[in-house]
Amino acid sequence: MPARRQKTPKKTAGPARWKKGGSESVARTRIFDVLTARYTHPRRKTSRDFYVIDAPDWVNVVALTTDHRLVLVRQFRFGINDFSIEIPGGVIDPGEKDPVAAGLRELREETGYEGLRARLLGSIRPNPAILSNRCHLVLVEECEKTSALEWDDDEEIEILLAPVDHVYEWARNGKISHALVLDALLLFAPHWEKLK
Amino acid sequence: MPARRQKTPKKTAGPARWKKGGSESVARTRIFDVLTARYTHPRRKTSRDFYVIDAPDWVNVVALTTDHRLVLVRQFRFGINDFSIEIPGGVIDPGEKDPVAAGLRELREETGYEGLRARLLGSIRPNPAILSNRCHLVLVEECEKTSALEWDDDEEIEILLAPVDHVYEWARNGKISHALVLDALLLFAPHWEKLK
Repeated sequence: MPARRQKTPKKTAGPARWKKGGSESVARTRIFDVLTARYTHPRRKTSRDFYVIDAPDWVNVVALTTDHRLVLVRQFRFGINDFSIEIPGGVIDPGEKDPVAAGLRELREETGYEGLRARLLGSIRPNPAILSNRCHLVLVEECEKTSALEWDDDEEIEILLAPVDHVYEWARNGKISHALVLDALLLFAPHWEKLK
Repeated sequence: MPARRQKTPKKTAGPARWKKGGSESVARTRIFDVLTARYTHPRRKTSRDFYVIDAPDWVNVVALTTDHRLVLVRQFRFGINDFSIEIPGGVIDPGEKDPVAAGLRELREETGYEGLRARLLGSIRPNPAILSNRCHLVLVEECEKTSALEWDDDEEIEILLAPVDHVYEWARNGKISHALVLDALLLFAPHWEKLK
């Protein structure tokens, strides 16, 4: 397939950084917008539109209790039409500059828990191919139930507490399957080695 | 806020399984569709439309070479308007029943590598709240370059080989930030403990 072999020289030059042009809205929803973004190849000078899901940054929180359990939430998720066991989290509000503060807010609103030594485990890309945003992963230690729940409309959340080792077992056996929750467990692992 | 306190009995009853009704297409793209799905609450009997991104399943491949390095791909990603270091993978074709076979195909087409003892590490949910699909994570051992590259249009891929320990370091320091790639590293870890 000569057309494909011709690409080899481009590979040796390294993948090109396409130049982003304008974008057009395809659909707007409460939680994300769908855009077509016009990109131009710097060498070929060809332009193409690519679909991008534009969403605000998200935050997920590894909340470790004083007795070394993790605060989990179980809820019905409309994307998969099924229940999902996750760590607390949500969408960072437009005004919120600090993802750690946003994580503490989501933890408190969803579960009523608050804790100490909140810090960023890392910031990841939910899907670089089609999603524009980041998901920030936050660790909070010595969490305790301190306040009443403040759920958004249509939020119905079962709060679970599970020993950290059980949570890692659930990650391996598929009982926990949410990609961003599993990422938080990957980045929490070296911290847990020191804390346990 | 009484309206919220009233939710507590529902919580003790556990989160409800909403009943899915019909859905309507909002936008269709080459790689995903955006739908509004009508859901009805079983107790409140209230109905609401929720946005769902409907996509085919994806597959990502942990390709371990005979000299214990991982096959990585670096490419420009239009969602984040930047480069991303990832493991090989892609979209499972409509006809493909077996995610492991799809992973071997993507590995061969993107990198020219093939290997042995291909098996499923696990299947995860990229985002249960808004995405309908699964991402299957596949492990392939003893990978070697055997064939020519077969890239899709607009694919320009730099192929990297890195020792496994470097890849985990890149996951911790943010050089690798793709959520689904990090998930594969979490599920590969116990296998690596035995293989190394």
